[in-house]
Amino acid sequence: MNPVLFIREKREGGKHRREDLEAFLLGYLRGEVPDYQVAAWLMAAFLRGLDPEETLWLTQVMARSGKVLDLSGLPHPVDKHSSGGVGDKVSLVVGPILAASGCTFAKMSGRGLAHTGGTIDKLESVPGWRGEMTEAEFLERARRVGLVIAAQSPELAPLDGRLYALRDVTATVESIPLIASSIMSKKLAAGARSIVLDVKVGRGAFMKTLEEARLLARTMVAIGEGAGRRVRAVLTRMEAPLGRAVGNALEVREAILTLKGEGPEDLLEVALRLAEEALGLEGLDPGLARKALRSGQALERFRAFLEAQGGDGRVVEDPSLLPLAEELPLPAEGEGVVAGVDAYRVGLAVLALGGGRRKKGEAVDHGVGVYLLKKPGDRVARGEALALVHHRGRGLEEALAHLRAAFRLGEEVRPQPLVLGVEP
Amino acid sequence: MNPVLFIREKREGGKHRREDLEAFLLGYLRGEVPDYQVAAWLMAAFLRGLDPEETLWLTQVMARSGKVLDLSGLPHPVDKHSSGGVGDKVSLVVGPILAASGCTFAKMSGRGLAHTGGTIDKLESVPGWRGEMTEAEFLERARRVGLVIAAQSPELAPLDGRLYALRDVTATVESIPLIASSIMSKKLAAGARSIVLDVKVGRGAFMKTLEEARLLARTMVAIGEGAGRRVRAVLTRMEAPLGRAVGNALEVREAILTLKGEGPEDLLEVALRLAEEALGLEGLDPGLARKALRSGQALERFRAFLEAQGGDGRVVEDPSLLPLAEELPLPAEGEGVVAGVDAYRVGLAVLALGGGRRKKGEAVDHGVGVYLLKKPGDRVARGEALALVHHRGRGLEEALAHLRAAFRLGEEVRPQPLVLGVEP
Repeated sequence: MNPVLFIREKREGGKHRREDLEAFLLGYLRGEVPDYQVAAWLMAAFLRGLDPEETLWLTQVMARSGKVLDLSGLPHPVDKHSSGGVGDKVSLVVGPILAASGCTFAKMSGRGLAHTGGTIDKLESVPGWRGEMTEAEFLERARRVGLVIAAQSPELAPLDGRLYALRDVTATVESIPLIASSIMSKKLAAGARSIVLDVKVGRGAFMKTLEEARLLARTMVAIGEGAGRRVRAVLTRMEAPLGRAVGNALEVREAILTLKGEGPEDLLEVALRLAEEALGLEGLDPGLARKALRSGQALERFRAFLEAQGGDGRVVEDPSLLPLAEELPLPAEGEGVVAGVDAYRVGLAVLALGGGRRKKGEAVDHGVGVYLLKKPGDRVARGEALALVHHRGRGLEEALAHLRAAFRLGEEVRPQPLVLGVEP
Repeated sequence: MNPVLFIREKREGGKHRREDLEAFLLGYLRGEVPDYQVAAWLMAAFLRGLDPEETLWLTQVMARSGKVLDLSGLPHPVDKHSSGGVGDKVSLVVGPILAASGCTFAKMSGRGLAHTGGTIDKLESVPGWRGEMTEAEFLERARRVGLVIAAQSPELAPLDGRLYALRDVTATVESIPLIASSIMSKKLAAGARSIVLDVKVGRGAFMKTLEEARLLARTMVAIGEGAGRRVRAVLTRMEAPLGRAVGNALEVREAILTLKGEGPEDLLEVALRLAEEALGLEGLDPGLARKALRSGQALERFRAFLEAQGGDGRVVEDPSLLPLAEELPLPAEGEGVVAGVDAYRVGLAVLALGGGRRKKGEAVDHGVGVYLLKKPGDRVARGEALALVHHRGRGLEEALAHLRAAFRLGEEVRPQPLVLGVEP
């Protein structure tokens, strides 16, 4: 494999051979192929595309570039991924449901970036809870509790980490095959047999249109199936935030309420749908999901999970143990029916309050956030509170400006379906 | 200028602003923008293109990135560039003609690479001749002799050197705007008012088709005119080698013969045409070119030029002073009319003999080469010599194989025009 001829092949729209692709990428990992050649190749791949086979091969090289977990001895190992949204605490509900339904929900999660939150950040608002652990601890918790969520290990798919960092600085991020292979490489390395994907679509998501979301979903499904996994992707609307809570501790509180049957309808619908799809992939009765909620087993499993990772399980009964900042109501400046709540703007508001990070490595404030009192379809009187803003003074004016812009009032609003499609 | 947004702009097919392009490229030259970002941008520019304004701006940033020569005080300063061919000793004929016609022919030349030769290598076969000199020496010789040819100074357009080296390893060489701007940046920095371009077309040239050669010519003309220079491009056929001599000393000998009026017709035609175009650009009588040849003034100027740069001027009368290796005739294996002599193959033969370099920095043997006894249209009997191979044993078998494949015999051949077009 001559790197220049390899790059030229993609530049001309050609198809790589599997062994060349592997040699080029492993050469990069070993430091033999320099950054600038990979950067040129990434741009050529971005503009010329990668076909389904190339995308699968790329994913497999990345998945095998580091440690690969073996969950095959565990009952019904299931993983879940969300393409990132605002107020997306679905994993905190799906995981306990699946664990209580006989599955092993063993997941690696990321931290939040820009306007979207990360599951690890959210869980860290539970006093004592930690996402860092050894591989042995991960497997032990998966076996004992059936539910474990760890911070993404740098030992899993390290080539993906290297490539992602390079894509980030060479304007080669927004490519469907590159996004799909990055996500799926980590899922393949994490070892679950079944994988459910929540592909968000809309203003608050990375995929703005149904077409590109469907393409991403199909690409990820094809990779997973090509690698011998069972995969289902659910396309869900992300125009308004999911649920009412946006911000780390607020979202954990809402997840607990949902596990108690007292949560918002939209969150429940998405979480149940993903859990049912996962159960179906594993050949189990999808009806187990609702039963796990009603029986309280899912909530109990959540408590056991928190405690297994050092967290204070009492938050399940007493959410006041979660760190919540001072609240300020946001009054409506007009009246009418809420026609839309722009999830992207709400995400920016929480970012401004300190609840997210603009750059990797920044600290986040777990206690700040926004709780939406009004959602699309709700009627509002002038001066009535639209939301509660949990803040510590920092960034408050900017957050309020984003929130005022986020709420759109109109005459009436037609309810829109939350689940937009399923692949395959 | 944010480098990632800048790269993305080109990735999306957008047009850069002049100040952004300058900031990105000068940032690279200063070491602030890393190789991998420039590599990604080069691939985006390769695949998305650069429009005429962007191409001009890129050229001007490169031209101004180092020293810029000022030839404005010299009479009729003229420069010439060839896009590279086999047996292309045109500069050695055009330069003396123009110097003898009242122009200042002050040129920087490169060394040969791959199957094409370089003017500096050819001239170095003259005992004592040197192409390295200071700027002051360059200007002094330009003024005194009217003819100076120096080895390309790394102080001229250093950004072009940096970008070219990066293009070479990132498969971004063969782009018309990038090629045109690379060539023209050095011409702009070298300071001549008029520039004639010899764009070679055919199997022995980098441009294989008339269409791409014409596009390259038009792009270079547009750059030159945009930068306030007078430019004319002549498109010339490069299927068979130009003249009969291919190899450093052999080509100098042939150039001397041509300056004496005893050279091959095709070389004379191209050299005269380029000289006439240059004279026309400078508002001089194109007829001066033939007069300079007939009067012997061009030959005298060549001798003065060789001596001014340390060379032995006696080679003009006594070509045996040139180092020529042992010769071996190549017999025809069939009979008929020579239908074609593949210049690319002949170039590879000379490369195999040691007369060129496969990599930058390699030494070349000035005495080896190929002298074509038969050219397209000539009738050949079986066993008759097609060419003389000047060799020192090294690479002889490989060279002979290339030469046997280079000669194509047929029934008869229709003469084809040498000059294929002129731009503008």
